[in-house]
Amino acid sequence: MKVTFQIEGATPVQIECNAGDNLLELARRANVAIDAPCSGNGSCGKCRVKLVEGVLDTIPSRHITDEEYEAGWRLSCNSKVLSDCTVFVPDIASAYQSRMKTADLSSPEEVAIFDSCQNDLKASGLTFANNYRALNLTMSAPSEDDTMPDNERLTWAVQEAAGVEKVKIPYAVMTKLAATLRENNFSVTVKGLLEDDTFICMEICAPEDTVIAGCAIDIGTTTVSMVLVDLESGKILAKGSSGNGQIRYGADVINRIIESTRPGGRKKLQDAIIKETLAPIIANLCRSAGISAKSILRLCIGANTTMNHLLVGVDADPVRMDPYIPSFFGWEDLTAGDLKLPANPLAPVIIAPNIGSYVGGDITAGTLASMIWDKDEMSLFIDLGTNGELVFGNRDFLMSCACSAGPAFEGGDISCGMRATDGAVEACVIDKTTMEPTLTIVGDADQKCVGICGSGIIDIISELYRCGIINAKGLFVREGDRVKRDQHGMGRYVIASAAESETGREVSINEVDIDNFIRAKGAIFSAIDTLLQSVDMTVDMIDHVYVAGGIGSGINMKNAVNIGMLPDVELEKFSYIGNSSLTGAYAMVISDEANAKCAEVAANMTYLELSTYPGYMDSFVAACFIPHTDSRLFPSSVQE
Amino acid sequence: MKVTFQIEGATPVQIECNAGDNLLELARRANVAIDAPCSGNGSCGKCRVKLVEGVLDTIPSRHITDEEYEAGWRLSCNSKVLSDCTVFVPDIASAYQSRMKTADLSSPEEVAIFDSCQNDLKASGLTFANNYRALNLTMSAPSEDDTMPDNERLTWAVQEAAGVEKVKIPYAVMTKLAATLRENNFSVTVKGLLEDDTFICMEICAPEDTVIAGCAIDIGTTTVSMVLVDLESGKILAKGSSGNGQIRYGADVINRIIESTRPGGRKKLQDAIIKETLAPIIANLCRSAGISAKSILRLCIGANTTMNHLLVGVDADPVRMDPYIPSFFGWEDLTAGDLKLPANPLAPVIIAPNIGSYVGGDITAGTLASMIWDKDEMSLFIDLGTNGELVFGNRDFLMSCACSAGPAFEGGDISCGMRATDGAVEACVIDKTTMEPTLTIVGDADQKCVGICGSGIIDIISELYRCGIINAKGLFVREGDRVKRDQHGMGRYVIASAAESETGREVSINEVDIDNFIRAKGAIFSAIDTLLQSVDMTVDMIDHVYVAGGIGSGINMKNAVNIGMLPDVELEKFSYIGNSSLTGAYAMVISDEANAKCAEVAANMTYLELSTYPGYMDSFVAACFIPHTDSRLFPSSVQE
Repeated sequence: MKVTFQIEGATPVQIECNAGDNLLELARRANVAIDAPCSGNGSCGKCRVKLVEGVLDTIPSRHITDEEYEAGWRLSCNSKVLSDCTVFVPDIASAYQSRMKTADLSSPEEVAIFDSCQNDLKASGLTFANNYRALNLTMSAPSEDDTMPDNERLTWAVQEAAGVEKVKIPYAVMTKLAATLRENNFSVTVKGLLEDDTFICMEICAPEDTVIAGCAIDIGTTTVSMVLVDLESGKILAKGSSGNGQIRYGADVINRIIESTRPGGRKKLQDAIIKETLAPIIANLCRSAGISAKSILRLCIGANTTMNHLLVGVDADPVRMDPYIPSFFGWEDLTAGDLKLPANPLAPVIIAPNIGSYVGGDITAGTLASMIWDKDEMSLFIDLGTNGELVFGNRDFLMSCACSAGPAFEGGDISCGMRATDGAVEACVIDKTTMEPTLTIVGDADQKCVGICGSGIIDIISELYRCGIINAKGLFVREGDRVKRDQHGMGRYVIASAAESETGREVSINEVDIDNFIRAKGAIFSAIDTLLQSVDMTVDMIDHVYVAGGIGSGINMKNAVNIGMLPDVELEKFSYIGNSSLTGAYAMVISDEANAKCAEVAANMTYLELSTYPGYMDSFVAACFIPHTDSRLFPSSVQE
Repeated sequence: MKVTFQIEGATPVQIECNAGDNLLELARRANVAIDAPCSGNGSCGKCRVKLVEGVLDTIPSRHITDEEYEAGWRLSCNSKVLSDCTVFVPDIASAYQSRMKTADLSSPEEVAIFDSCQNDLKASGLTFANNYRALNLTMSAPSEDDTMPDNERLTWAVQEAAGVEKVKIPYAVMTKLAATLRENNFSVTVKGLLEDDTFICMEICAPEDTVIAGCAIDIGTTTVSMVLVDLESGKILAKGSSGNGQIRYGADVINRIIESTRPGGRKKLQDAIIKETLAPIIANLCRSAGISAKSILRLCIGANTTMNHLLVGVDADPVRMDPYIPSFFGWEDLTAGDLKLPANPLAPVIIAPNIGSYVGGDITAGTLASMIWDKDEMSLFIDLGTNGELVFGNRDFLMSCACSAGPAFEGGDISCGMRATDGAVEACVIDKTTMEPTLTIVGDADQKCVGICGSGIIDIISELYRCGIINAKGLFVREGDRVKRDQHGMGRYVIASAAESETGREVSINEVDIDNFIRAKGAIFSAIDTLLQSVDMTVDMIDHVYVAGGIGSGINMKNAVNIGMLPDVELEKFSYIGNSSLTGAYAMVISDEANAKCAEVAANMTYLELSTYPGYMDSFVAACFIPHTDSRLFPSSVQE
């Protein structure tokens, strides 16, 4: 039996199968990207495909209307193949899994954040230096009077140039030594690491090839971002990002851990992040920077605990199982060769240390970059990713915790949600009288609406509440052209009608979406609340709020306060600091001292387990209103 | 087009090919072992196969008689495939490439040599100890009150047990850490290396698995031998050998180097030794000893310079090209993982250091085992392998040189030559009157003759000379039933007629064989002569002669003197010390001090390049007689 996937805007893919095979599973096997944030349990409704030919046995779903079913639309996770089939995979089905992007470094904003991170860390007294070196060596050729073999010849030259006693020539260098020396008339560049009295030769190449590079990587549950940096100057050589290829095994860490515990699962998840995600980006950045992957001598990873474990391929199950103790916090003995990453196989892979199962290296790296560990004032650092993580404190103490906000801030769990790519509503203002929206859409000026990203959702809900269209519980209380109800009476607000949208499908936000979002923002605020309580402090004692993460610079802090997501402090106290996990990893890859500082920050950070903390559940329930059951906490939030 | 190889006593193998493809090349591609010591240039005549069906375009050869041709016999190296073919590959065609053998350790001789080597080295003051350890660790399981992650838990336990400050947990151990701890209730064995203040965890396993093993390997050009040893007790756990799988790319190092310089050649030669030869023996020995390959924590290799280079996969061409300087002498940074050997991937692979292009690690390891570096008396150490290598000296100085003796001592270059396996004539006495031989044949009591191995050839030539059947030039001077001549008048001595032999083919030694052998023995003696001259010494100053190598314990020293191969000193000065390269590697794998001593011996050894040494060629020409042109050098050699 055969299934043909007609992928919108791409070459069709065919796969052999047996009767009864699950269509989503087949798509995964055939490497066809179909978004399935719920990992195929039928709850998210994102994996819709259109049956063109053949017979599928599909369980009905609330996500597919009768008309849509009639037109051939099916959820692939709910469909079994009964005959040879052809299915159409719309682009939107993989919109959540974004394409690879390479940044334009001529734009000053792209590099400003790294320069400023470097300046901040230097101002705090850290040196931006490492022990990686490119040595230019010129040797004499062997002759009857000079019978030294190649490796001893190289050893002498390196000893001289690096001023070391011992020289290590590992296998990868040894096997190309004879040819490289002879091709270059015994004048070569050796790249490597100076370690005490030893120089480790990591690469031998032509004399003109002198760049030594580092690679800083943020592995988010949804998105992976990377910068290639010059290890000598700290200059950004290239920058890029892409969706995390593991997304097809679930949008959240729990689903991925479960997937990884199935037979062959660890390898599958590891391949999805290494082979399918990191390797292509690294290759792309190397090409863009005009360097060889072998010149990448150090990599630094900012990633949450689950992403770390799945990357390394160690058992991630302890992360989600009582007593929630991961296999490692920090670990120093990993190399690019171990992971088969396209970099110098001897390059150390430094994983920013985890604090606990749900506060990972992305947060310790982000905390490093936020500089809150260097201040007298009290700061709150919030990373709004697929999970929400918080750090509160100053140079004297740091408390951290995590809450399961779900993927709402990155567009997941929302019927028309998407990441902040072309076609996403990233900001919205609603006219109170006409209830008509004014949208800001990512992309060109004539880009039509495809869906809604995190910052857009915050704006829409805040505006719906301000205009009295929804009440504090998130239910629709006004009627009009833009407010519709389905046969069960569930209300929704139409952001773009089928005619107005890019895809011909209505883009709207319904009461289930709003409820999902309220629980997500409630989780964040109650976590903040509980964290403050745990150190006997209150919202008004916060001097700075740093917001980081994939939600994007489009976030409207005022709206986020209005809906009771962020604490009601003066707006000038808020800063959006972007992808701080990446910025932190950038600092660590260049600077040995930043590296040590991150480990120190991690070691001194206290982890608060919210799920067992008395009062957290009450606080959460109280926060599941707009803005909050105790409106005194949000004096500036008003319904007009 | 298809060729089917009907292999005697094995499953047939089929391979697709194109018209005009060379049959020997096809056999190599199909992994059919056809012996071709001359690497397929038509000179050795060993690659004979029998055409059963189809058409071959074969260049006639002196090695195939008209009758044989009529019967279908062809040299595969000289044959091009013109149609679908079926060819019969006789067992004899691969007899030179021996089957894998595992030694019976209950036989005291098998282990005596290792015990005596250990005793000798201990007597000279060396400690037999290393820094590999198996640690038995019992930890508490993590709990809500004991939230240490797995790797830190292990680190603490190892620090305690090994008394070290730092603990390295490499990737291979990290990825199985969580599961191994939990499967064994946090009671495990960790095997690893103690290095200064650091313990490197190389393996984690069940608590009852406590053996740590080392592997000593002699890689000969023709034969590979190996012992698996207990790194704690020094006990031999298993012992085995097999032919070197590279043999199909040529019998000597030069042909193999040339083969390795062809496209893909380095990989091909490396695969032949690692995947096809070492890996199966290691797997076999591990099975026989009942241990896991991961328990092999150190490997030590005694091999000539070319074998070293081909093993490691570095460019071997400098070995054979002016100025004859190899890529390395010693090299310390190699691991089993680099070579993908079935052992612990972190296990260091220690290569006994080379002295020059033609005096390799087999000789330095052998010199270590011979103990000549520890004596006041003058000793001559001779390794009779595919090449002949000599070391002369005592505790004050050591001189070494190599001569290209060719494979005659291992049965190569001799029409009916073979290795000392079942059916080989290993000793021979000839009745002067009747000229009838009395043979000693390797194998069971009823084993019939297949060919002649090195020690047999020495005996036969010595006996032919003693009985006046051949003259000093190796030409036949008597006639009789056993002496035959071909149509060109070339004489041969029939050791076993077609009726008497195992294979139904006559086993004989002809004038070309004798000439080849005389040149081989002449190379050895002239090397001895020149080496002694270079230090202004003479034969009578030799106190001991140690003969090592594949020629086997069957060597009759008196006969070897009679024919002018070994110097004419008192017979009690000779000792056969077996495979000293393996014995030396055995000492090095267990004892760090033996290891250091080998490096010291190598560093202090002087290398004499014979090919450019004045007088060597004259000495060689003078030695190409039985026993020598100057018979005063061999007073005890007499023709009866």
